[in-house]
Amino acid sequence: MSTWIEQAERVIRRCAELARITDEPGHITRTFLSPATREAHACLRRWMEELGMAVRLDSAGNLRGVHAGAQPGAPTLYLGSHIDTVPHAGAFDGVLGVVLALALVEALDGRRLQFAVEVVAFSEEEGVRFGVPFIGSRALAGTVDADLLDRRDASGKTVTDAIREFGLDPERLPEAAGDGALGYLEFHIEQGPVLEALHLPLGVVESIVGQSRFEVLFEGQANHAGTTPAQHRRDALAGAAEWIGRVEREACATADLRATVGSLDVQPGASNVIAGCVRATLDVRHASDDIRRQAVASMLDAAAQIGERRGLAVRWEPRLNQPATPMHRSLLAALDRAVSREGFPVHRMTSGAGHDAMVMAQKCPSAMLFLRSPGGISHHPDETVVLGDVAAALSVGMAFLEELEARRA
Amino acid sequence: MSTWIEQAERVIRRCAELARITDEPGHITRTFLSPATREAHACLRRWMEELGMAVRLDSAGNLRGVHAGAQPGAPTLYLGSHIDTVPHAGAFDGVLGVVLALALVEALDGRRLQFAVEVVAFSEEEGVRFGVPFIGSRALAGTVDADLLDRRDASGKTVTDAIREFGLDPERLPEAAGDGALGYLEFHIEQGPVLEALHLPLGVVESIVGQSRFEVLFEGQANHAGTTPAQHRRDALAGAAEWIGRVEREACATADLRATVGSLDVQPGASNVIAGCVRATLDVRHASDDIRRQAVASMLDAAAQIGERRGLAVRWEPRLNQPATPMHRSLLAALDRAVSREGFPVHRMTSGAGHDAMVMAQKCPSAMLFLRSPGGISHHPDETVVLGDVAAALSVGMAFLEELEARRA
Repeated sequence: MSTWIEQAERVIRRCAELARITDEPGHITRTFLSPATREAHACLRRWMEELGMAVRLDSAGNLRGVHAGAQPGAPTLYLGSHIDTVPHAGAFDGVLGVVLALALVEALDGRRLQFAVEVVAFSEEEGVRFGVPFIGSRALAGTVDADLLDRRDASGKTVTDAIREFGLDPERLPEAAGDGALGYLEFHIEQGPVLEALHLPLGVVESIVGQSRFEVLFEGQANHAGTTPAQHRRDALAGAAEWIGRVEREACATADLRATVGSLDVQPGASNVIAGCVRATLDVRHASDDIRRQAVASMLDAAAQIGERRGLAVRWEPRLNQPATPMHRSLLAALDRAVSREGFPVHRMTSGAGHDAMVMAQKCPSAMLFLRSPGGISHHPDETVVLGDVAAALSVGMAFLEELEARRA
Repeated sequence: MSTWIEQAERVIRRCAELARITDEPGHITRTFLSPATREAHACLRRWMEELGMAVRLDSAGNLRGVHAGAQPGAPTLYLGSHIDTVPHAGAFDGVLGVVLALALVEALDGRRLQFAVEVVAFSEEEGVRFGVPFIGSRALAGTVDADLLDRRDASGKTVTDAIREFGLDPERLPEAAGDGALGYLEFHIEQGPVLEALHLPLGVVESIVGQSRFEVLFEGQANHAGTTPAQHRRDALAGAAEWIGRVEREACATADLRATVGSLDVQPGASNVIAGCVRATLDVRHASDDIRRQAVASMLDAAAQIGERRGLAVRWEPRLNQPATPMHRSLLAALDRAVSREGFPVHRMTSGAGHDAMVMAQKCPSAMLFLRSPGGISHHPDETVVLGDVAAALSVGMAFLEELEARRA
């Protein structure tokens, strides 16, 4: 049998192979059920069939390969991640989790476990085409609703239209829901700098942060930059800038709080006109929903106070309120043991980004293993992985399967 | 003879009449040598000819009507302002100064002075079509250069092309330069809140501010809003926001300094991505060039310090460096006396905006009289004037003519 390093080399080669399948030549871009998706499916289906897996494409466009258990009716351990990408993506976000799962099935070398292993290539996680994420995992978790199906893409097509146009039957979406699930394990790049800073290859995700997103509007009075004295100004941008400083100080003062103002639209936006209106986004995340809610309240309160003092009308609208998702205690313990057994330090961490595991956790016990992201870079062509880290993830993944197998023995 | 109030009513009616001549139905928009300009010329030409003035259109598209002096070869007092507008303008910015000047000629009722009065409707002051202002007054001041003539509008046409297409001869631009000028007086709305706050109808412009404009670039590192801890962030927007606060404090700490960050471009500009790059504008104005230059240096120094502390690359590029323009001492004295003689308080003030008088001051002694702007509103359909203020300006204008006449007697 080949070494984990050799297997890891092949995993990376396969990620590169999938990266060539794109909607946009010269870049890596694959959105929900786009033409490139069909080609990616063909490639993954071939790899699955080479391993003797039973392959099906569910009505949400998730490609699913089953390595059956020793007995009929054995419960299913899902392994997987997503194969859609952001525009101009890197080669590893999502795809790595699918290809790595296939390498684990290959490493089983035909051995049957007390549970089936189903590898899922989720069709959608990034939210690019329809502005909402997790279409694939929501189908498996059984949480797709009419609101999601009626969302429209830029060309006016609904999710239902997209499914039908791909040759799938939206009526059969309920059949996509997973049954008899033992659990879900997802391998994913960290997409952040923490593991690299700690010189660690792997991180055990303890929970996925809750997220609040708001749009905050500062309305003042657009006016002439030359003729309006300071005391007559109601400068929306000066107010928004003061608030951004407050958001930043609040984030720095609270352990593990992430708060970001990432977008600012300034109107009228001319060099010689005082800004009359600023539309800002606020993104706040924490593993504790209480801490997150308190931080948001304090930041919005600061915006209101700044507005009052400056004569600006300040309003906000919630855009997202996603509670934190703890990973499953029993799977976490199995993952800790697997990491330890393979000789790596166990580092528990919070995922600051949403993942399919967050949605799958509504369905079954779920866990995630992070691989170090060199430079903390993701959603970018420079996104990469360390060969040794992929080998480490493979060996830990196999140890995890053995842990579960031992439990059921 | 009609009263000043009756004359003022007619001035306002004529401004409203010109406001109906627009390139964009439903709005007031007239740009340099646009189709509407021709119609505005026809209207103004009729009014000038009704007063017996000798009318010509110079090669820069300035419409000029001469009320000859008592003797041939008498020097010329120029009165005027511009008839182009910003997009979706009000009815008074510029136009008022032209129409008011014609009302003064009418009030002379055929009387010849020791100087000719030439009313100029400048073709361009706002800088909309070619991105640079003062095309009209620069032709009269004789400061048009190849750089200006080669500027292109959005459709790729040069200033020279525009002149030629309007049926004028760009070769004859030198003939537009004014000769034997006694001086230039411009009536203009204040476009600011100062006179209204002081309950004054009129203000004597003592000088026009100098202006510095810069583009300031903050470059950090775009990164994931959820996975990047505070200490790993190089957030370009947080840096720019801190700097905007510094600019504002500096402006408030220095008497009569105006400093504005009016435009901010945030990249990539997504709610869940830390800003990697922010491009900000800086506009600084003061009547003292020294104070302005010191303020700019201090603001740019603050940007550099903020950048260094935050790990951001900060660069800036100058966009404008326009020295302050004092109005002419002798004309200022005549204007003060005229205001006083008509029973109004003399309020000397600085113009925070550029005006044709700034360009004409390079050519001849120049002066400006501001009329109160209700609500400080300009460059907006709600821009207006107070009837009594227009009457006041007319009576002061006539008294000013008498002052000059007395000097030459």
